[in-house]
Amino acid sequence: MAHKNIFYAQSGGATAVINATACGLIETARQNEHRIGKVFAGRNGILGALHEELIDTSLESAETISGLRHTPSSAFGSCRYKLKDIHKDPRQYERLIEVFKAHDIGYFFYNGGGDSQDTAHKISLLGKVMNYPLTCIGIPKTIDNDLSFTDNCPGFGSVAKYVAISTQEAAYDVSCMSASSTKIFIFEVMGRHAGWIAASAGLGKKHADDAPHLILFPEIPFEADKFLKKVKETVEKNDYCVIVVSEGIRHPDGRFVSEAGLMDAFGHEQLGGVAPVIARLIKKHLGYKHHWAVADYLQRAARHIASQTDLDQAYALGKAAVEFALNGKTDVMLTIQRETGPVYRWNIGTAPLSQVANVEYKMPRNYIDEEGFAITEACHRYLEPLIQGEAYPPYKNGMPEYVKLKNQLVPKKLKEAFTIE
Amino acid sequence: MAHKNIFYAQSGGATAVINATACGLIETARQNEHRIGKVFAGRNGILGALHEELIDTSLESAETISGLRHTPSSAFGSCRYKLKDIHKDPRQYERLIEVFKAHDIGYFFYNGGGDSQDTAHKISLLGKVMNYPLTCIGIPKTIDNDLSFTDNCPGFGSVAKYVAISTQEAAYDVSCMSASSTKIFIFEVMGRHAGWIAASAGLGKKHADDAPHLILFPEIPFEADKFLKKVKETVEKNDYCVIVVSEGIRHPDGRFVSEAGLMDAFGHEQLGGVAPVIARLIKKHLGYKHHWAVADYLQRAARHIASQTDLDQAYALGKAAVEFALNGKTDVMLTIQRETGPVYRWNIGTAPLSQVANVEYKMPRNYIDEEGFAITEACHRYLEPLIQGEAYPPYKNGMPEYVKLKNQLVPKKLKEAFTIE
Repeated sequence: MAHKNIFYAQSGGATAVINATACGLIETARQNEHRIGKVFAGRNGILGALHEELIDTSLESAETISGLRHTPSSAFGSCRYKLKDIHKDPRQYERLIEVFKAHDIGYFFYNGGGDSQDTAHKISLLGKVMNYPLTCIGIPKTIDNDLSFTDNCPGFGSVAKYVAISTQEAAYDVSCMSASSTKIFIFEVMGRHAGWIAASAGLGKKHADDAPHLILFPEIPFEADKFLKKVKETVEKNDYCVIVVSEGIRHPDGRFVSEAGLMDAFGHEQLGGVAPVIARLIKKHLGYKHHWAVADYLQRAARHIASQTDLDQAYALGKAAVEFALNGKTDVMLTIQRETGPVYRWNIGTAPLSQVANVEYKMPRNYIDEEGFAITEACHRYLEPLIQGEAYPPYKNGMPEYVKLKNQLVPKKLKEAFTIE
Repeated sequence: MAHKNIFYAQSGGATAVINATACGLIETARQNEHRIGKVFAGRNGILGALHEELIDTSLESAETISGLRHTPSSAFGSCRYKLKDIHKDPRQYERLIEVFKAHDIGYFFYNGGGDSQDTAHKISLLGKVMNYPLTCIGIPKTIDNDLSFTDNCPGFGSVAKYVAISTQEAAYDVSCMSASSTKIFIFEVMGRHAGWIAASAGLGKKHADDAPHLILFPEIPFEADKFLKKVKETVEKNDYCVIVVSEGIRHPDGRFVSEAGLMDAFGHEQLGGVAPVIARLIKKHLGYKHHWAVADYLQRAARHIASQTDLDQAYALGKAAVEFALNGKTDVMLTIQRETGPVYRWNIGTAPLSQVANVEYKMPRNYIDEEGFAITEACHRYLEPLIQGEAYPPYKNGMPEYVKLKNQLVPKKLKEAFTIE
């Protein structure tokens, strides 16, 4: 009897280390070929299952699969597609069962953030509601670090490291010419709802006067007057001020600050970017010369300075997904559990998919200091282990040797295409 | 008889490796203490000389000075101050002579870009015009790579490496979700007049369809229609398009594209950022979902991924400055000379300061392809050696161990302060 195959897919925004999870999963599956079939990867996440676009990873060499460990982005493509409720719209689920049956899929591994765990949960209901038995495991991944039940999320540690380092480097830069030139540096980082990424900028701050001087968290309503007062105080004391701002900060009335009325010459609202809005505000009220940066995709793709801890955890989760599945675990999301004690240690646990989905984990209030512009010692203790170690990729001719897969599709077996409504 | 002291200063924008030049210079001076006095560093460039604010580098330990090799920014502070003509405004020069006499300065080393070499040249006239003998050497440094007479400029290779890597990483990111999400990524890099930094993004492109798909150079007038046509073609072919844009691109009529009429709600012109302007243009005419990043200071401070070649050259120039001075060379800027032959080799030469100042070196037209959106093979051959090797800094607790100097000033000897008009 042939062993059941695996369906694995990557979902949501890319990270520096999600391919390390794929690497751990595929390498472990290959080591267990006496118990498990092939690993088919969904082309563009769950869409690959609906469209019967299954990538045959067995066609990739061991060397290429190993290269995934040091390659950023989602090697099989990704999506943000959300499945509808299984009871309200069974059509999508019927299609999934058709595809899974046709390709003898017995294991479903979905690698993503909160929405993706929701998808994993819905698919885990296939067995109960539609009588298609499937081992179903969610593997966490999100730079936003906003999943519950897990101590942290793979992908976040590397962004945190990049942001902490970049903040310090830029601060060194602005400080050297503040006497006669730029006094303000504003660094916009990701984080629509949770301030974890902005918080990580605080990791490089050793003394009260060190950068970053002000962090703007989405958890704290943005009060312009209070902020400007702090900027002025900081410049008067240190001659310069480094500000890290989360893209998702909001006015007390709930509007995003990034939507604060920038228009082009035709009166259309300008798209995105809270850093220039903050820059304009400072320029207008305090007159200081400023510079600003927006890291955008650079921060989450920065495999060149990935955290070794993050990489280790990402790989270990992929490995554990196969091992846990072979041991009969199902309908769970894997989690990273921090052990107690003075030295950072972690192990892999599980949480029920039914509880994980769509629960957002914001920063606890005691991780942000009272004034609301800095992280606390407790936050620092939480974050610091996550950026330990430098997981450098190999280089050739001065450039990282990132791999590209063949991504060859398994021949289709179903007669009909599926249309997503 | 006491040996003459050195005045060394850093000028203009910071780089990832200018402190490596300081390190080479100070370490070499210390090795020659039987022939040369102390190294005094100007606090904030030439302003330190005018204000008699001289940093005594002899108070820094060998370990700290060694740490400058892996620390970005300008450790002694910098400025962009331009001296006036010696014949029209001798007052500043009289002051410099007073300060130099008071502190027994016999060597003047100025480390900077085009404007700074102009300052070095003017000061080299002190000997001839005001009878104050001074060994005067300019040391090149600029991320813009726009100095003549030298094959390349220290500081540039590290920015080039950062930009080339970041472009590839972001391209990996955008490509994985282009099927259902963002199709356009725009990356704004520095370069007000010369396109060298934007060009370096092309180093990661191996095949015609690889990113970056379009580079916008300041040397090529920006024609919106032609550009939009190329964007559309690229997306139709590859499903995504990565664009690298130099901050200094201009419309055919000479106006900066970054000044293209973005207003805030009050009708004030919005400050800086060509990336959002390009993003808006694409959105309006083609409708594609986009992301954009502005690296700003991050690119020139990114010591964490500095080029080893760049670092070696920066250090070697600091060392050579002292050696050349001891051998009687004066009134020159040091240069990096590329040797001929299939393997990249370089040595240090000189060019007369009188010829170097204020000559800007833009990209040769044959380094940009005919359409104006990509680099040529000749450009690739020129750039590639400059990003070779990864000069990683040491890390502690997940963060680079950048040093901070005491920067203790030499006691003032002059009675009067100097006011800069």
